[in-house]
Amino acid sequence: MGTASKAMNNKGQLKAGTRQRVLQAAEELNFTPNALICSLQRGQTHTIGVFAWPVQIGAVNDITLPLLKGVADGVAGSGRDLLLYSDKPNQFPALTPATFLDGRVDGLILGPTTVKPEAVAMLANAGLPLVVLYNGDVPDSTGSVTIDNAAGVAAAVDHLVELGHRRIVFCGAMMTPDAAERYASYVSSLERHGLPYDSALSVIPDDWISDFEEVCRMLIALPKPPTAIIAGDDASAFPLIEALKLCGKSVPEDISVVGFDDCPAAANSPGLTTVRQPAQEVGQLAGQLISRLLEGAPASECRVTLPVELIIRASTAPPPAG
Amino acid sequence: MGTASKAMNNKGQLKAGTRQRVLQAAEELNFTPNALICSLQRGQTHTIGVFAWPVQIGAVNDITLPLLKGVADGVAGSGRDLLLYSDKPNQFPALTPATFLDGRVDGLILGPTTVKPEAVAMLANAGLPLVVLYNGDVPDSTGSVTIDNAAGVAAAVDHLVELGHRRIVFCGAMMTPDAAERYASYVSSLERHGLPYDSALSVIPDDWISDFEEVCRMLIALPKPPTAIIAGDDASAFPLIEALKLCGKSVPEDISVVGFDDCPAAANSPGLTTVRQPAQEVGQLAGQLISRLLEGAPASECRVTLPVELIIRASTAPPPAG
Repeated sequence: MGTASKAMNNKGQLKAGTRQRVLQAAEELNFTPNALICSLQRGQTHTIGVFAWPVQIGAVNDITLPLLKGVADGVAGSGRDLLLYSDKPNQFPALTPATFLDGRVDGLILGPTTVKPEAVAMLANAGLPLVVLYNGDVPDSTGSVTIDNAAGVAAAVDHLVELGHRRIVFCGAMMTPDAAERYASYVSSLERHGLPYDSALSVIPDDWISDFEEVCRMLIALPKPPTAIIAGDDASAFPLIEALKLCGKSVPEDISVVGFDDCPAAANSPGLTTVRQPAQEVGQLAGQLISRLLEGAPASECRVTLPVELIIRASTAPPPAG
Repeated sequence: MGTASKAMNNKGQLKAGTRQRVLQAAEELNFTPNALICSLQRGQTHTIGVFAWPVQIGAVNDITLPLLKGVADGVAGSGRDLLLYSDKPNQFPALTPATFLDGRVDGLILGPTTVKPEAVAMLANAGLPLVVLYNGDVPDSTGSVTIDNAAGVAAAVDHLVELGHRRIVFCGAMMTPDAAERYASYVSSLERHGLPYDSALSVIPDDWISDFEEVCRMLIALPKPPTAIIAGDDASAFPLIEALKLCGKSVPEDISVVGFDDCPAAANSPGLTTVRQPAQEVGQLAGQLISRLLEGAPASECRVTLPVELIIRASTAPPPAG
């Protein structure tokens, strides 16, 4: 072990003056211990990977921004930094598990559909600490942060039924575990209220909806058209409202619309009735839980389901008379 | 050099069958070459550091979101990922230059005031490729992306003068090179129109303005109160408009307000007249220029100043009669 190394790492036996001179020289030379070498020595990079959502301008209409802020806040206290994988999540071919095992990150926060279940299992088997967002169905060693989708949609259906609605649509792409839970709660909530289930009122494609106007025309053309729509998320609720307008329908006078998320734009005038999920808290918890996993906490203590809350705004009203 | 290494790196002489067996074993073991070791061997991490702005929910009122999207887009094509430093920019004590020289990043994108000029010089001397945003006063080896602040404020003053305004305030904290250029252009634009300069109409504190209501009360109480305000940025224009309302003044009926940035929220009803800067393009160019620097392009070819454009919306109108 060299003199400089002993001095820098405060190890071994050195005269006080020698250590002092080495540290001073290092400071003057603006010497930085190479993090890669330190990382290999310590087996730690102090870096957390995030592979969850692409950064989008439209993020005002979804929850990317509060989530990302939450993750940054949750990780900041631990002295770790964030590695954002630039390959766009949800654009296939996705990154392979090997990408995350290349040694750059100590742990990884994953979006619910960014990698396949087999890949999550493979990463967990490889010993990489993981926290999965919005999906509680994870390997034993893995943490998760989920939200109470069932309670949220139940509250939305209750609200619409109380207003007098009887023909309520669920409209959302079935791309995530959240979507499946929301749809299941829609079906059981109708049943709870004694309302008949009508498959014509379920708009649940496998992929993102590309033509909301077509969806609206189809719904309006039904023999018994709906008076309310529950959108799978706010990002769908906004284009739905626009499409309804294009079809000559007013929201909420003709049709009520409820979203899910309470994204930053939902509070903008005239306001969207929506189920608020604590996105910033989801991100912050994920950042904290990955740190806890790294510190050796059992994964069973690193799984949290957060409550949600219906926020009533201007997009819902009693159905039109008649 | 070991057999496995020869096989993995496609080097040396090996029987075809041997290479095949090694590659197959590696695949079965889900083997990933350690990126840290590869990085040390190659001297490259394929990672770009970003130390520019904290992620904030209020980012709808500023340009963080388009900038970050731009950087992500600009870097994506190069196969590099982004390391976001979690220590919050603009919160002191700031990260030291040593932080960025720890070997985790190949290059760095810096916000205009995140590190001091001495630190920028030190990083440049240490050979770290740098692109500085919104500040063209950089070391010889460093790239930059700036915008034409002078033309933007000149267009704003022209617009207000054409509407009939004669008493125009400039209100912005003097924290960045951009702010200084905007204020200088305000002063010279007044002169160009033969309008007298009145120091009471310059609100230019050294730090962020914390009490916009106090600023508004002071301006309204002047013997000759202003009829228009140019805010240093949109993030100041919104609280200024709110504060004017609290003081009983309508925008634009009593006082016109112009912002600078054209942040995502500026287009929301009723709309903010503002100078549009191409923030997404700024970020994207920064991502591309750091790649060009890494590929050996001369820094003199990696400095760009982008044009801006006045966007007229509902926050400006002729001054009240009298």
